[in-house]
Amino acid sequence: MTQMPSQQETSVDQNSTTNNNTTNNTTTNNTKKMNLVLGSMAARPKNRIRVFVERILRNAPKEGEVNEKTGVPYPKRMDLSLGDPTALGLSPPQEAKDAVVEAIQGEALTTKQVHGYQHSCGSPAFREAITREIRPALGENAVFVTSGCSQALQFALTALAKDGSNVLVPNPAFPLYNTICEFVNAEARPYKLLSDRGWQSCLEDLEAKCDQDTCCLLVCNPGNPTSHSYSPDHIEELLRFAYRRGIPVVADEVYAHMTYQVQVGGAGSSADEENGGAGDGDFQYMAEIAHSRLGSQRPPVLSCSALSKRFLVPGWRTGWLALYDDAGESLEKAGLYTGIAALCQIGMTPTSLIQAAAPVVLEKTPESYHRKLNLTMKKGAEYCLERCNRCPGLQCLSVPKGAMYLFFQVPTSNKEVADAMDSDDVKWCRELLEQQNVFTLPGVLFGSPGFVRIVSAAPMSVLEEAWNRIEDFCKGN
Amino acid sequence: MTQMPSQQETSVDQNSTTNNNTTNNTTTNNTKKMNLVLGSMAARPKNRIRVFVERILRNAPKEGEVNEKTGVPYPKRMDLSLGDPTALGLSPPQEAKDAVVEAIQGEALTTKQVHGYQHSCGSPAFREAITREIRPALGENAVFVTSGCSQALQFALTALAKDGSNVLVPNPAFPLYNTICEFVNAEARPYKLLSDRGWQSCLEDLEAKCDQDTCCLLVCNPGNPTSHSYSPDHIEELLRFAYRRGIPVVADEVYAHMTYQVQVGGAGSSADEENGGAGDGDFQYMAEIAHSRLGSQRPPVLSCSALSKRFLVPGWRTGWLALYDDAGESLEKAGLYTGIAALCQIGMTPTSLIQAAAPVVLEKTPESYHRKLNLTMKKGAEYCLERCNRCPGLQCLSVPKGAMYLFFQVPTSNKEVADAMDSDDVKWCRELLEQQNVFTLPGVLFGSPGFVRIVSAAPMSVLEEAWNRIEDFCKGN
Repeated sequence: MTQMPSQQETSVDQNSTTNNNTTNNTTTNNTKKMNLVLGSMAARPKNRIRVFVERILRNAPKEGEVNEKTGVPYPKRMDLSLGDPTALGLSPPQEAKDAVVEAIQGEALTTKQVHGYQHSCGSPAFREAITREIRPALGENAVFVTSGCSQALQFALTALAKDGSNVLVPNPAFPLYNTICEFVNAEARPYKLLSDRGWQSCLEDLEAKCDQDTCCLLVCNPGNPTSHSYSPDHIEELLRFAYRRGIPVVADEVYAHMTYQVQVGGAGSSADEENGGAGDGDFQYMAEIAHSRLGSQRPPVLSCSALSKRFLVPGWRTGWLALYDDAGESLEKAGLYTGIAALCQIGMTPTSLIQAAAPVVLEKTPESYHRKLNLTMKKGAEYCLERCNRCPGLQCLSVPKGAMYLFFQVPTSNKEVADAMDSDDVKWCRELLEQQNVFTLPGVLFGSPGFVRIVSAAPMSVLEEAWNRIEDFCKGN
Repeated sequence: MTQMPSQQETSVDQNSTTNNNTTNNTTTNNTKKMNLVLGSMAARPKNRIRVFVERILRNAPKEGEVNEKTGVPYPKRMDLSLGDPTALGLSPPQEAKDAVVEAIQGEALTTKQVHGYQHSCGSPAFREAITREIRPALGENAVFVTSGCSQALQFALTALAKDGSNVLVPNPAFPLYNTICEFVNAEARPYKLLSDRGWQSCLEDLEAKCDQDTCCLLVCNPGNPTSHSYSPDHIEELLRFAYRRGIPVVADEVYAHMTYQVQVGGAGSSADEENGGAGDGDFQYMAEIAHSRLGSQRPPVLSCSALSKRFLVPGWRTGWLALYDDAGESLEKAGLYTGIAALCQIGMTPTSLIQAAAPVVLEKTPESYHRKLNLTMKKGAEYCLERCNRCPGLQCLSVPKGAMYLFFQVPTSNKEVADAMDSDDVKWCRELLEQQNVFTLPGVLFGSPGFVRIVSAAPMSVLEEAWNRIEDFCKGN
């Protein structure tokens, strides 16, 4: 039944095609033509940021290279493009690092718990710890451990979207939403955020964009790239809209608790400094507001979050998806719990080691760490806002209230461009990089040409140096 | 533009539907009917093992519970169902644990390298370390870090399969292949492995099953659940078949190097013990054989592997996908590199912490660790085989040569059953669990009713106790 290959077939590099008595495929260059087309799930998704970064960095100055215009060597690259403050000198809590070491070296956990397969939806201890972390309270079975908030969003949209569905995504927004929609073959349908009103959602636009194929409303709060933090009243409006239109809400809450109140035109009082700008105490999850303000007239909320930002461990890829069903149990009836469990089971991607440590990370990290981080974010936002307003041509109409960015307008020519990568903001970022070696991201990547995003959560010395260079650039020095 | 909600809408739990001037959705139980259907990518995948485990464990005896038939309490559960020896007393190398601690506590790496975002296709240092680990040599850009071998398989099949494609999957096989095919909406088309010939693939069946919609040949070697290890000649046959039919090979090589030569009817010599049964030195990756024996007449090979099994860290979820293109660069021309990079970018799931440690794990783990583990596997396989052959009604026709299982036949009634979950092997596993509290997996989960899989990589004391109970069970004690 199983035969040895013929003599002819075993010879190596014979540079002739082998006999082919089963198919009539053509051959190229003396090698067989393969039956190969890239699958659509791999062909559709485009990572805009990655494409841009690779393109722009190709021509960026190298450190030490001499600026031909000025005759002096370029200063060190300052990368304020990615939402990863670990690259800029900020560190995760010591308690988080200790928790991983203790999981490995201590005797409280078994080898299996630290290094072995975990339950595909997450280890029981971590799921339980998450139920204590999030609000309102929720059963463990409604919490799924994911590889970062990105995978929580991916699972939520994969479970909700069908071919032909559309997802209402904010504009501007983190482009991962588009990438995931491309992956699941749904339309990412942008709804407008208002740049001069704290980036609130335009409800008229939402009403107009929502139709029978809309499978969910995606809300990012606190917001990226816009650093907004919505008032409970505005969140209530969004929830009521979703409920009225019969669609669930997917809440990207990876910046949960990372809110602050910027003092425009000066530093805050010492009382503000102690409580990190009074921001954290104000934060409410969308599901909290849904329960407290809408009661049984609430839509389902699929809340996505992670350790990534609040504990400054974005590389750990440890997050969760929490399912808050509506009063009619729509998620349960549609099989969402089973469907998301099935998605978890395919890859079982979250790491045992970090799941073993995560309950301790959540429990032991002192409030003082978060207060200090929020204060760093607040001071960074204040500083960036102040420096931005001093730069000729730059403008930021909405004061940042959460997350870790300043999203500001750059001078625009109002010229139509054929290629989005020729827009004014791309040009601005490219020239800033080429002249001052400061790397920022153009708004076009987030759906808002004419804007630029800069990371504001960084040590003050980093921000000062960066803004000195930006100011020089804006003044044409 | 953004209005406050009306008085009526803000009242909580009013138990009446709100005015609805935009849609005509019906309401149920006074709450809004949501527009909710589970997406097909979440609805299709079924994890057979998980469903079975949940079903069978529901009625399994609890520890200490009294066996009504015998009047004595049930002994402790012995779980020999999952391919995770960390649950059975085996441990990862100390060097692996130390590498993670050193990454956190040492000063060789930056905060960003240990805790921050990594390149979406993997950190440069880990990709480079993988290129040194695998054979033949390959450029770093052809290596993608994944969350375990599972995700490598998922990415490979997602990139290759289209709607309507079929994937040639071995039968029996690890059911994840089916789950992934369901996810990507491809047909998992089983080809026969020969239970009495070392589970070699039936080439006639392969020829018959392959057609114009076949997008790849999936081969698992060393094999799960069958613990086969194919000869280079048989691998050559499979590669030539794939090349002739113009399809790439997806190689599940998560058990790479975990091969051994069982001494039937007695323990090996001390020389065998020293080199772990001479197994490891014999192992060859499929791509190695493709290059050395087929030269330019080779198919592309997508090799999937991981740290999981060889370093006993299945929970770490750290693996890789290595793309070996053919001489005509079919993978490159079809855009596979870009497509797989796009899949990596959606989730960026592999953890920074483990990527930071992994190069050291690969470099520093001494050969003596692998030799000892291979010896444990060899002795476990020998012991299981011997005990199996002594049990009335059990039979194993192919001697295990790799991986960590014994896949043996149980007595069959030859009765047709309407529900696969009523097959003889399921009944056997259920009764073994109920009577002896030993948990094994029925072959039906792997596509082979009439067989049972037991983990053989365990300390001898564990295997002895388990087989004593199995023998009692088989003898009807």
